[in-house]
Amino acid sequence: MKRHLISAADLTRDDAVLILDTAEEMARVADRPIKKLPTLRGRTVVNLFFEDSTRTRISFEAAAKRLSADVINFSAKGSSVSKGESLKDTALTLEAMGADAVVIRHHDSGAPHRLATSGWIGGSVVNAGDGTHEHPTQALLDAFTMRRRLVGADEGLGQDLAGRRITIVGDILHSRVARSNVHLLHTLGAEVTLVAPPTLVPIGVEQWPCEVSYDLDAVVAKSDAVMMLRVQRERMNAAFFPTEREYARRYGLDGDRMSRMPEHAIVMHPGPMNRGMEITAEVADSPRCTAVEQVTNGVSIRMAVLYLLLGGNEPALTAGNGTSTRTEESK
Amino acid sequence: MKRHLISAADLTRDDAVLILDTAEEMARVADRPIKKLPTLRGRTVVNLFFEDSTRTRISFEAAAKRLSADVINFSAKGSSVSKGESLKDTALTLEAMGADAVVIRHHDSGAPHRLATSGWIGGSVVNAGDGTHEHPTQALLDAFTMRRRLVGADEGLGQDLAGRRITIVGDILHSRVARSNVHLLHTLGAEVTLVAPPTLVPIGVEQWPCEVSYDLDAVVAKSDAVMMLRVQRERMNAAFFPTEREYARRYGLDGDRMSRMPEHAIVMHPGPMNRGMEITAEVADSPRCTAVEQVTNGVSIRMAVLYLLLGGNEPALTAGNGTSTRTEESK
Amino acid sequence: MKRHLISAADLTRDDAVLILDTAEEMARVADRPIKKLPTLRGRTVVNLFFEDSTRTRISFEAAAKRLSADVINFSAKGSSVSKGESLKDTALTLEAMGADAVVIRHHDSGAPHRLATSGWIGGSVVNAGDGTHEHPTQALLDAFTMRRRLVGADEGLGQDLAGRRITIVGDILHSRVARSNVHLLHTLGAEVTLVAPPTLVPIGVEQWPCEVSYDLDAVVAKSDAVMMLRVQRERMNAAFFPTEREYARRYGLDGDRMSRMPEHAIVMHPGPMNRGMEITAEVADSPRCTAVEQVTNGVSIRMAVLYLLLGGNEPALTAGNGTSTRTEESK
Repeated sequence: MKRHLISAADLTRDDAVLILDTAEEMARVADRPIKKLPTLRGRTVVNLFFEDSTRTRISFEAAAKRLSADVINFSAKGSSVSKGESLKDTALTLEAMGADAVVIRHHDSGAPHRLATSGWIGGSVVNAGDGTHEHPTQALLDAFTMRRRLVGADEGLGQDLAGRRITIVGDILHSRVARSNVHLLHTLGAEVTLVAPPTLVPIGVEQWPCEVSYDLDAVVAKSDAVMMLRVQRERMNAAFFPTEREYARRYGLDGDRMSRMPEHAIVMHPGPMNRGMEITAEVADSPRCTAVEQVTNGVSIRMAVLYLLLGGNEPALTAGNGTSTRTEESK
Repeated sequence: MKRHLISAADLTRDDAVLILDTAEEMARVADRPIKKLPTLRGRTVVNLFFEDSTRTRISFEAAAKRLSADVINFSAKGSSVSKGESLKDTALTLEAMGADAVVIRHHDSGAPHRLATSGWIGGSVVNAGDGTHEHPTQALLDAFTMRRRLVGADEGLGQDLAGRRITIVGDILHSRVARSNVHLLHTLGAEVTLVAPPTLVPIGVEQWPCEVSYDLDAVVAKSDAVMMLRVQRERMNAAFFPTEREYARRYGLDGDRMSRMPEHAIVMHPGPMNRGMEITAEVADSPRCTAVEQVTNGVSIRMAVLYLLLGGNEPALTAGNGTSTRTEESK
Repeated sequence: MKRHLISAADLTRDDAVLILDTAEEMARVADRPIKKLPTLRGRTVVNLFFEDSTRTRISFEAAAKRLSADVINFSAKGSSVSKGESLKDTALTLEAMGADAVVIRHHDSGAPHRLATSGWIGGSVVNAGDGTHEHPTQALLDAFTMRRRLVGADEGLGQDLAGRRITIVGDILHSRVARSNVHLLHTLGAEVTLVAPPTLVPIGVEQWPCEVSYDLDAVVAKSDAVMMLRVQRERMNAAFFPTEREYARRYGLDGDRMSRMPEHAIVMHPGPMNRGMEITAEVADSPRCTAVEQVTNGVSIRMAVLYLLLGGNEPALTAGNGTSTRTEESK
């Protein structure tokens, strides 16, 4: 694996499967008497957030702490960054302070890439969402959730998602979640269909490795997983969408529409959900909806990513076979 | 003991005495060469603050860290909560991330109760102040301070406050501190008298297990502890109170009034104090005023509450008898 | 050494050399397999910041965590301080909660001194920048950087900067960095020259242990280190300085001017740099510019200061000779 995680598109199938398998190990740490691994003790993870995102920040923070890393939160608001310090100066500062990993959230698409390729940073860069570009750990936790639900936690080890049919519904145009998912799911062998209002489909989508449909009812009937994207109300207006009710009717998921899905199929949502908008409360609270599991899986995936990028100080996991985990207790 | 701490009214006498006794043990950790216990290693405590309260937040943070827990601070300002995420979604997120305890401060009375009884959270919920309702750890640290001062640190073990006469003075109407104290002190056998301007006495106070008086001079002469509440200036106006000087004259504590208290009696204040308003600088800085001790005791009480709710991974304390504490050193 | 670090002027030559030597030890911790020392385990360091300064805050936070201390960040914005709580009440609260060190950044010159001499705080107070007064750890990290570059990391042990010629250029009037550097460099035996526009030279500078010059070109040719201060644009106007270009021409450092410096001489900057203003990009990015090293050295210096002030729980360093470091591994 590379030293950074910038884009889901950079991952090979084997990289992705290794991350999912490692996350499966990490998920088991939560069942231990002491829910921590010592592997990143003495390492420093900086959460560099140019945009507020408490959910993502605390997920990375919890993941790093469970690996015994030291975590420093750096909210770029109110910092010298707002006094005109450049991304370069911020990067050089963090590098000079000895950051082993920088988890970056930025409103500009491409900022994490710039950070990783600039040579400013000696440690690892993890993209925690950049503009409308990518959010690779979200795609990984989504794939992990699908594999666990559709294949099984143990049975899934070493497996990809070959042949699974995944539908992503909503504002594809502005969604870094959709973009990262399309890349990763394609790499893992899944067949992806996007369903969106025509004004919210990106130009150039023909080049993406997926189908586009405007008939949600027809598509859900053949899906193994239906992923509903969060509607940003302010963008609905920009897209000249008539009304929220009309959106919900055509592109939302309610109990009736969910009942057309195959029996084994799941409903996914990156959260937080707009109940009554893209998803009804009935669907959101049904056992088929994995929104809460996705949050749990997010911590496991971020542990796996940090672990694999930073290497650890000692063999905490025997990479690849997923059977042995050395921990503090066994030292 | 229950799994949550929502209201001082929920505590039995034995629960409360157990917490006070455990806090006494915790207070001794500060005297150790390494001022930490390993008992909550691997546990995650989330400080979920919908209202700014740095004092309370850092008290819980210090308490959790002294027990070796990982602490994640979640200020709900600027988070997706402000983008319309419900308390439910926030709760489900924290639960999914594996929070073992959620310490919640909320402007709405009842929010911690909703969190604890909803089934959204598998871990423990600790109320760190909700609206004008309750602030149970404040009442516990106040009772702990009284027991230490009026009975003694060692002599107090296993004891309650039977027969002690406690006076609470000020804006009872808006005070969660007063409310929690009345409940807990009654449970512990103390006799409580409230003194307040008539417009700042809550309707229905007749049902509370305490007396109400308007003659502060008469009451202080018979008090073992006089607790002065912080005046919120903006509420004084709402109560049509003539002037600050008039308030200080009738309901404030100055050296003259303090001199009428019994010799052993103490002055308490939850802080921060308005010197010159509800308390003069002379009283605030006198050795009879326990305001600073209350802050120290707050950390011990919060350690005790977190320890008892989360159970720990190993027997760090032999519950109840207060004589043995297993620590990192003795492992 | 004293219990607090308030002003570089308080340090004797031996104090300062001890700090530099200890920082040299601390710098080597970064090369260890586990980049941490256990010496401050169980100690609590509070970062009390009345002014935003992410760089300084995370440098102290990283330093404290590498010594295994617990760190609590207290941003005084939005806290009860802004509700009118006095510095005294805040100090008493932190003391009561058991803070072993309070790192304070304050907009008022003298606030750290008040904190340290008040008796409110039993622990150590470290000045992290107060108004236009002092920033002693910045001066220490600057001296450490000079000693490493001009004398050598190993060769420098036990040495001061006797006879070195240091030039500080820019807005001396408002600079706590300049003030702390003048004091410390004088103590360490260096010869300091200040170069500044006449309106930005403080009244009373004649009493300072340094020279003042208005001819930058002449001075740089005889300097071992040239320290460029950051220009605060809003203050340039207040100083009636004609234009930014005129400032850069007369008081900025460009490649041409740098070429007149002796071959071994270095360029320093406390960061963040205004490229094109007080320093050109060419100079900023040249190997002679130590801005990034200064950041790295800042963590080592702050580790040394916290270590020396708090004493640690066990002999982690054999003070003074710089050869032995006991660590977690060797326990």
